[in-house]
This record gives sequence, structure tokens and C-alpha cells, in this order.
Amino acid sequence: MIDLHLIGTGTGNPDHLTRAAIAAMNAADLILLPRKGDEKSDLIDVRRALCAEVLTGQTQVIAFDLPDRDPDTPYRDAVDQWHDAIADAWAAQIAAHLPNGGRLALLVWGDPSLYDSTLRIADRLRAGGMAMTVTVVPGITSLQALTAAHAIPLNDVAAPVLITTGRRLREAGWPDGVDTLAVMLDGKCAFDTLDPAGVTIWWGAYLGMAYEELASGPLATVGPRIVADRAALRARHGWIMDIYLLRRTPAGA
Amino acid sequence: MIDLHLIGTGTGNPDHLTRAAIAAMNAADLILLPRKGDEKSDLIDVRRALCAEVLTGQTQVIAFDLPDRDPDTPYRDAVDQWHDAIADAWAAQIAAHLPNGGRLALLVWGDPSLYDSTLRIADRLRAGGMAMTVTVVPGITSLQALTAAHAIPLNDVAAPVLITTGRRLREAGWPDGVDTLAVMLDGKCAFDTLDPAGVTIWWGAYLGMAYEELASGPLATVGPRIVADRAALRARHGWIMDIYLLRRTPAGA
Ligand SMILES: C[S@@+](CC[C@H](N)C(=O)[O-])C[C@H]1O[C@@H](n2cnc3c(N)ncnc32)[C@H](O)[C@@H]1O
Ligand SMILES: C[S@@+](CC[C@H](N)C(=O)[O-])C[C@H]1O[C@@H](n2cnc3c(N)ncnc32)[C@H](O)[C@@H]1O
Repeated sequence: MIDLHLIGTGTGNPDHLTRAAIAAMNAADLILLPRKGDEKSDLIDVRRALCAEVLTGQTQVIAFDLPDRDPDTPYRDAVDQWHDAIADAWAAQIAAHLPNGGRLALLVWGDPSLYDSTLRIADRLRAGGMAMTVTVVPGITSLQALTAAHAIPLNDVAAPVLITTGRRLREAGWPDGVDTLAVMLDGKCAFDTLDPAGVTIWWGAYLGMAYEELASGPLATVGPRIVADRAALRARHGWIMDIYLLRRTPAGA
Repeated sequence: MIDLHLIGTGTGNPDHLTRAAIAAMNAADLILLPRKGDEKSDLIDVRRALCAEVLTGQTQVIAFDLPDRDPDTPYRDAVDQWHDAIADAWAAQIAAHLPNGGRLALLVWGDPSLYDSTLRIADRLRAGGMAMTVTVVPGITSLQALTAAHAIPLNDVAAPVLITTGRRLREAGWPDGVDTLAVMLDGKCAFDTLDPAGVTIWWGAYLGMAYEELASGPLATVGPRIVADRAALRARHGWIMDIYLLRRTPAGA
């Protein structure tokens, strides 16, 4: 039997670890650290640093290579095949390092509920017949790191908020009935495709990390600056992760 | 000068405190604990317990009475007047206990960004001329406590999520273009007004607390059970806080 703990660790700032996360890391027999290829190698370093900082006992920490997503397969199919391949990679690590079962932990960036595939991969292993319990330890998301860094509320008073992706925003535009959008997974500055009138943006990159970057203000003036800064930052660090909140003046206000 | 720290503490489970929250609590000269009237007196007990558990130094902890919202004034106006009254109550506590300035902390339920008024109240004090810096320490939200307790993802793969209120859902129905709704601030089971066909609900009350309650399944069968359980729980504890996620089968799937 495998007792899997998916531990949200926040977005890089070790002080965003909860007491539950630290306890779950220490209670694990094995922590598996996925390696995602060179590009985001900083992320595995961040995770190794978290382990070094909080582990006090016998927990084994093992890095393993994550398969890549096939860029030539259509998105949904590629994601499905990729998740299958990741499930196989986990199974191989479990067979090698926890052959008699035990407590396995995975460190999940931010919170395991938000645009993350580890829960789905655990489902695949269970569906494939592995005896496994799954426990989730929540963590600070990049969205909370964003609002905290800017010291802003996520929502207007009693108003809704849509969490969405750059791809969606680009394809479907600003949806009706909601004046605040939180946009993640945007490699291409989808905000640039919107009419900026009356829209404010709060943007953050590498949130929680040493080289955190913030910008905010009217989309009309700040948007183009973010496009330029983002390209420069991406070139400098080799990768970027960013997130933003857009708020427009409500219709009729 | 007041250095205000708004510290997200999660929803009652002391193990959801982050290292940053614990450090900020200990670094404060004064922690103000709002008392909200009898009904939710458990909540001030939870906060007192958090303080007792993590404070190791000289931090003063002072409870003060929060003014009530006028139930007879229209919602938006009532909220505005209420925030003004809370700002006055903070100012009185600051004058009494930090007359020469210092580091003030407020413990915010969940995360300060999410349906919480403390940031707006701080803005009022600054607008009124108080010299104040504001720092936000993020915390685990009730929404993350919900998804973690059920071990479910918030979003479908690459799909958006709307965070909304019971009032909105009741008034406007299920909005177009989004198949997952996270519903908060719902005193009246707004899910009961929806066509339940193809909808799954994941519900949680008192999340993170000793008497946490969970339910999930098809809305058609689980919805009525939640309505009944909720009334019984509310009667037993004198108050209830609950949150739920609704997911419908996407159109065309
Ligand atoms: C695959 S999702 C994972 C989200 C994560 N589970 C969370 O809770 O934040 C990756 C996206 O999260 C956002 N993100 C994650 N970490 C970030 C960081 N440190 N700074 C800015 N954005 C970040 C970006 O929008 C990125 O495209
Ligand atoms: C004023 S809002 C504050 C939300 C808080 N800032 C957060 O981050 O979760 C209160 C609403 O949050 C949800 N909530 C807060 N604590 C909860 C708990 N322990 N269990 C279930 N729902 C909770 C309920 O929907 C409640 O109506």
C-alpha cells in the first residue's frame, strides 16, 4: 500500500510552507522530485532547497526525469498521453524505491488543486490497480502570492472572479458577467489582445522567489511595458512563470 | 507610523499556518482580535488558540468588539457604513494600545484577498490620514481547504473556474462559458435553485476545524441531503460556514 501525500509548497518562498506541509515532508519515507528538463532547472533547485531546509529525519529524496509533452500532438491528446507517461515514471520510481509500500510525498508547486496534474496522475495509478491512499496538503497558490505581493483583494465587494488561462482569454475574449479575471498559464501576453479601456492589471513573475517582479496600473500604459519586460526577463533567466489579475470598471459604474 | 500586517491564518487548522504567518505574529507588537458577537464566538476562540500555540515573545493580544452590519440598510450601503465603523474601531484600538506607532497584526480568516474586508478597512484609515504601511501574508483559503479535504482539482484540464457568491448564483443562475463554480457566502443553499442534471457537488462546512463536515456526489441526490444536514448543523453549533464546488458536464462532452 502506498500512502501518497501531495504537498502544496507555495511558489518558492520557503516561508510560505505551512506547518502541515513541513510535517508531511518529514513523515514521508520518500520524496520524489520531478526534473523537467534544463529550462526550468531553477524549480528543482528550489525544491531541493526546501527539502534541505525543513527535513530533519530519514526521508529519502530522489530526483527523476519527467517525460516531455509531445508538442506535435493536439493539446488534449498530448496532455492525456503525457499524464500516462508520467504515471509510468512514478510507478517505476515506486517499484525501485518503495517496493514494499510506504509513505510517498510529491511536492506540488503552489496548491495541488490549481492547474496541476498530480491528482490526475494519482488517479491513473489507482485506476491501473495500484493500492494507494491520496492525501492533499494545501499550499499557497501563485494567485495568492500575486494578491499578497500587491496587497490587493482578489474580488470586488461581493463580486465574482474568473480564474482562467491565457489561451482561453486569447480565444474567447473577456467573458460576460465578470469584471475580474485571474489569468494563469499565459505564455503569450493574452492581455495584449483586449481593449484596454477601463482595465487595470496587476502582474507578477517569479512570485515568492528571489527575483520576483511586479508591475501594476492601467492596462493601456502598463501592458506594453510588461510585454517588453517579460521578454527581457525570459531571456535573462531562460524561463518565466507569470500570472496577472485584470479588473475592469463594472458596466454602469 | 503603523506597520500593519494582515496575516492569513487559514480556516482554523493551526497546521495550515505558514512559517511567514507564525513569524509575522511573533514580530507584531500588537495583535487585534475582532469579536463578532455571540453567534460566531467559536471563531475568536480559534484565533486565541492560534495565538496561544505560536506566540513565544512579547506580542500583546487584545480583543475588541466589531460593530454590527445594519440588516435594514440596503446591502452595498450597509457594507460601506459598516466598513467605516470598523475603521473607527481599529483607530480607537490603535490610539489606545499603539499610541507611538509600531507593528500591528490582524489575523485574517483564510486569505486576506478572498471575500474579506480588512484591506479595504486599511485603505480607509490611510485615506483618513493615518500613516501606515500594509503587508499581506497569504493564508490557506477555505476553497483550498475544500479541494484538499476532497482531494479534488479545482479546475478541469485547462478549463476556467468562477469563484462567486450564493447571492449571485441565486440571482443570475449558472453563468455561460464556465463549467466549474466555487460558491462562497451562501446562507441559503443557492445550489437548490439549479437544474441538477449533470451537476456534481463537493461541499464542506467548518473546514479545518474539529467538527469539519464533507459531502459530495450528484447534486440531484446529495443536494437535498446537504440542505437538511446544514440546517441540523447550524442548529447544533449556533452558526455555520460552508463552501462548495459545482461542476457540470461540459456542453458537447
Ligand atoms: C501549471 S500552473 C501551476 C499553478 C500552481 N499549482 C499554483 O497553485 O500556483 C503554472 C502557472 O502558475 C502560475 N505561476 C506558478 N508559479 C508562479 C510564480 N512563482 N510566479 C508567477 N506565476 C506563477 C503561472 O501562471 C504559471 O503559468
Ligand atoms: C467572508 S468570507 C471569508 C473567506 C476567507 N477569507 C477565505 O480565504 O476562505 C466567508 C466565507 O468563506 C467560506 N468559509 C470560510 N471559512 C470556512 C470554513 N472553515 N469552512 C467552510 N467554508 C468557509 C464560507 O463560504 C463563508 O461564507
